[in-house]
Amino acid sequence: MDQVSAAYDDAGLYGLAAVRAEIDRRLAEVLPPDSQGKNRIGDAMREGTLAAGKRVRPTLLILAARGLGCESPALIDLGCAVEMIHAGSLIVDDMPCMDNANVRRGQPTIHRRFGEDVAVLTAVALLTKAFSLVSSLAEVPPDLRAQLVSKLADAVGMQGLVKGQYEDLHDGAHPRSAEEIAATNELKTGVLFGATLHMAALIAEATEAQRELLEGFAFELGHAFQLLDDLMDGTQLQDKDCGKDEGKSTLVALLGPDAVKKQLATHLEKADLYLAELYGPEQLISRFMHRLFDDALKRR
Amino acid sequence: MDQVSAAYDDAGLYGLAAVRAEIDRRLAEVLPPDSQGKNRIGDAMREGTLAAGKRVRPTLLILAARGLGCESPALIDLGCAVEMIHAGSLIVDDMPCMDNANVRRGQPTIHRRFGEDVAVLTAVALLTKAFSLVSSLAEVPPDLRAQLVSKLADAVGMQGLVKGQYEDLHDGAHPRSAEEIAATNELKTGVLFGATLHMAALIAEATEAQRELLEGFAFELGHAFQLLDDLMDGTQLQDKDCGKDEGKSTLVALLGPDAVKKQLATHLEKADLYLAELYGPEQLISRFMHRLFDDALKRR
Repeated sequence: MDQVSAAYDDAGLYGLAAVRAEIDRRLAEVLPPDSQGKNRIGDAMREGTLAAGKRVRPTLLILAARGLGCESPALIDLGCAVEMIHAGSLIVDDMPCMDNANVRRGQPTIHRRFGEDVAVLTAVALLTKAFSLVSSLAEVPPDLRAQLVSKLADAVGMQGLVKGQYEDLHDGAHPRSAEEIAATNELKTGVLFGATLHMAALIAEATEAQRELLEGFAFELGHAFQLLDDLMDGTQLQDKDCGKDEGKSTLVALLGPDAVKKQLATHLEKADLYLAELYGPEQLISRFMHRLFDDALKRR
Repeated sequence: MDQVSAAYDDAGLYGLAAVRAEIDRRLAEVLPPDSQGKNRIGDAMREGTLAAGKRVRPTLLILAARGLGCESPALIDLGCAVEMIHAGSLIVDDMPCMDNANVRRGQPTIHRRFGEDVAVLTAVALLTKAFSLVSSLAEVPPDLRAQLVSKLADAVGMQGLVKGQYEDLHDGAHPRSAEEIAATNELKTGVLFGATLHMAALIAEATEAQRELLEGFAFELGHAFQLLDDLMDGTQLQDKDCGKDEGKSTLVALLGPDAVKKQLATHLEKADLYLAELYGPEQLISRFMHRLFDDALKRR
């Protein structure tokens, strides 16, 4: 990965590539070292997390907090924790009893490479490692650490990712209204986006007004992201083959791609309004968001 | 469960039954309410945790801390968190890709009743709920809460339960030395016992000397517990049917039951020495331990 040491991104601009490099460097440090098969759980943790991926959540967290003046080195670790939660949730989603995916991010899924037993234990280990990282963040006051752990747990648990995945599996095959689909989408992606930006607000000691603006941004971005996922058939975005995803009731199936693209653009516009109010007109976080969506839609 | 409201145990003695009742009452409160099938993850969390079980870890935690003079109401919640971790680990251990057990504690296992997808998500939800409980313990200083979360995470993660389950699955079928078996056993049960009693020491503000005695007690108890499990073929102790447990290399297979019983008795004697030094001659925690082992060996 030559991105790791690059301080300039592929457009020759300093900033995003440097953030990406910081995240990847620290992830490689906090994950178990490559054991060449001696520690299969550790290797699966490493591969499941370090594999190609856009580091959307940690990048958002870091940029959002830095934009508010937060220079805490703990930002990177907090971002790594969110990324490990995300990676663990993808491992679970891909399992045969879930979406039954064989390929993710262009690679065989973790259970295909390491076996289902290792996949489950790896997801547990990643989740646990994330909580452990947050609870021991250096230079963060302990009451803030406890709040961050709570926030992260709420995003994962029965009211968050777990519920979203369950609803998607069990209700996705039935006809759903646009509102029902949006509610599940909110749980599947919106909750972790929301928690990520809420944590950015906490660690940056944001004002109540700033926190609300970040919440609005997270809401719009989460919806835009899920619409993008739907537009890509829920597959190409993550380089994921579809198993049970096929036949799911999505907004694209319900409303048609053009209407969905329009909705997506509206969400991004609203997201930009929040960003402009928070950070002014020209900022890295908006650039990151647009590049993400432009790249994905180009590949469609 | 009429035990729940009983303040006297079946020998007519006040104490253990009251502790059990406190734990069960609080567990029923912190778990999602019975939804009669509307919230299947919540129902599975509830059944997987509240099902018959000896509440060994929360009882030990509460008695160990109270014996050191700690009266914190947070003890019960901390005990509930440990029990939820334990319940989540049993759900994972029972899955088809692991031990493939159909029955646990006299009931069909969670994946048999709710499906594999619900089982995985339930384990994740229980784990997450446990971390959430600990990170928001009322009346516990936040730096202590952060320490407790770290301790719990260490016991679960790649160096704890996860590693123990992996080694048991993958190395259990091969011949192992007594030392190798003991090392896996230590990870499978000893680590969570150790963490449980370490957390008791933390919340009770134990002296360094007391913490070391509790550590010694946890070590002996963990080994005694795993030997008991081996003596019961790893099955009857948890009312668990054996799937892949059969053919595992255990200490009983290696040394014979008589030698194992002798070892077990020695571990309990040593455990009692630690307890006597900590708490004096007559105490509830020793009574709890002996009843646990006597009851189990009687059923053998």
